[in-house]
Amino acid sequence: MFREKIKVLDCTIRDGGLMNNHNFTHEFVRAVYKAISEAGIDYMEIGYKNSRRLFSPKDYGKWKFCDEDDIKRAIEGVPSKTKLSVMVDVDRVDFDDVPQKKDSIVSMVRVASYVKDIDKAIFLVNHFADKGYETTVNIMAISRALDNELTEALHQLEEECKARVIYVVDSNGALYQESVEFLVKKFKSILKSKEIGMHAHNNQQLAFSNTIEAIIHDANYVDGSIYGLGRAAGNCPTELLLGFLKNPKYDIRPILDVISKEFIPLREKLEWGYVIPYAITGILDEHPKTAMALRESNKKEDYREFYEGFLGDDTD
Amino acid sequence: MFREKIKVLDCTIRDGGLMNNHNFTHEFVRAVYKAISEAGIDYMEIGYKNSRRLFSPKDYGKWKFCDEDDIKRAIEGVPSKTKLSVMVDVDRVDFDDVPQKKDSIVSMVRVASYVKDIDKAIFLVNHFADKGYETTVNIMAISRALDNELTEALHQLEEECKARVIYVVDSNGALYQESVEFLVKKFKSILKSKEIGMHAHNNQQLAFSNTIEAIIHDANYVDGSIYGLGRAAGNCPTELLLGFLKNPKYDIRPILDVISKEFIPLREKLEWGYVIPYAITGILDEHPKTAMALRESNKKEDYREFYEGFLGDDTD
Repeated sequence: MFREKIKVLDCTIRDGGLMNNHNFTHEFVRAVYKAISEAGIDYMEIGYKNSRRLFSPKDYGKWKFCDEDDIKRAIEGVPSKTKLSVMVDVDRVDFDDVPQKKDSIVSMVRVASYVKDIDKAIFLVNHFADKGYETTVNIMAISRALDNELTEALHQLEEECKARVIYVVDSNGALYQESVEFLVKKFKSILKSKEIGMHAHNNQQLAFSNTIEAIIHDANYVDGSIYGLGRAAGNCPTELLLGFLKNPKYDIRPILDVISKEFIPLREKLEWGYVIPYAITGILDEHPKTAMALRESNKKEDYREFYEGFLGDDTD
Repeated sequence: MFREKIKVLDCTIRDGGLMNNHNFTHEFVRAVYKAISEAGIDYMEIGYKNSRRLFSPKDYGKWKFCDEDDIKRAIEGVPSKTKLSVMVDVDRVDFDDVPQKKDSIVSMVRVASYVKDIDKAIFLVNHFADKGYETTVNIMAISRALDNELTEALHQLEEECKARVIYVVDSNGALYQESVEFLVKKFKSILKSKEIGMHAHNNQQLAFSNTIEAIIHDANYVDGSIYGLGRAAGNCPTELLLGFLKNPKYDIRPILDVISKEFIPLREKLEWGYVIPYAITGILDEHPKTAMALRESNKKEDYREFYEGFLGDDTD
């Protein structure tokens, strides 16, 4: 038996782009889009709508900006019922870069926000909703949110925000399943008119199980990425999610194929997934950026020193 | 807050030995024993007590047989409070190979058994218990057990068996957390005089979360392996388990060190951990042996064909 309301969003290109400055080729994006479409996945997030005033196209690939023409070039001619999504960060978007929905190939705009920025997030979401898009708010670094501030933010979202879905985002890969249960139940108790989403990171190999846990407690929007490709330890593997979900509309085989053909060669050039420094930042509920820097250094396997570096912080 | 009764058993050398015919060097075993001892881990499983009449020492390394002299050579001089464990399979052990406990450096004998062999397992366990050992029964392939047969086996274990601990063993890496909850609750409801253990495999990246789930429902014996080293997709990573458990007697740092120094170089020579063929056997609740064979073949990345091979089985 399956729950028809569950929607899968594959964020491979968007979250994976954080590992290569969004420099995927059109051919790679096309292969991923084709696999996701054939697999029957509901949404594909193709990148960010970031401002060119803040980020230079010299430093970043096209999926940092997601121009309509680039998207069209990557996907045209591929039969698909998959809707496209783009992500927007608070304070990093130019409104004029996002056209009216009727002039766009994109269906959904997801706004990523910390709890402290929720007023800005609501303003953004309502703007994009008024342009005709489906919208969501993705509350990042939720493991670090103070409960009273989160409660207030959720009430604001319920009362003032046009987003249909509010996501729990475990940016640090720090949550255990009991905390996922706590958070999803909390979200549901306040966000009575909205759906709950789950976006997990895999620092402690818990992205898939935390996504299942969210589903158990009635989250209906779940993010996956193919072979887990995403920032640092990556995300909930889409292939495992499809193996778990029983909706006959999903087919795992195109995902298996694209891993064979595209992701195994890519893995030779680009590192993501479970390594000890990401596990350490997950265990300590720290942002993975220090671990990502370590992996680029000549101390990439010096785990004890890296771990002890956190213990030495002054904390009074 | 921690639960003092929780005991961690590291099975790196025993389960990992299934990937290299138990051919770890004395030096490697010594480094692992030293790390486990310094980390404060309760038990280390060092290998099998398999019969030399059934398995030739020409084909297998010393940790398939675990002679007292080999164990002593690997560990002598290392300060340690860690107890040693060996595993015994039904129908593969010679009683005479296992001395009286008073003449052995080993503290615990774990008997691995399918539900169908539970009578033999009980006979073995009672024999080793009478020799003075701590004993457990590890019920393998539990995801394939019929509920009525499992119920009968658990009643027999409660009534006839001297083992202090009975393990849920997810040999296929097929369990999701709801089934772990179901099984641990079932075990506890029948095995009123015993402790429950959890031994998980990581085919679907669920070994750690399933171990947490078992702990939540009062399993007090949990298996880990360093960097997940174990058969196929491997086991619950010991480093993640120590990061989760709050008992101050555990120290993750020696485990981090031994991964840096021993496991990163080993990983260049030996494959274990999450790859798609192991995920497929986990999703389909199949034994990983077919996936292990695939990884040794020239079709190691042909996932779709491998997946479809299972779908083609006659099932009437």
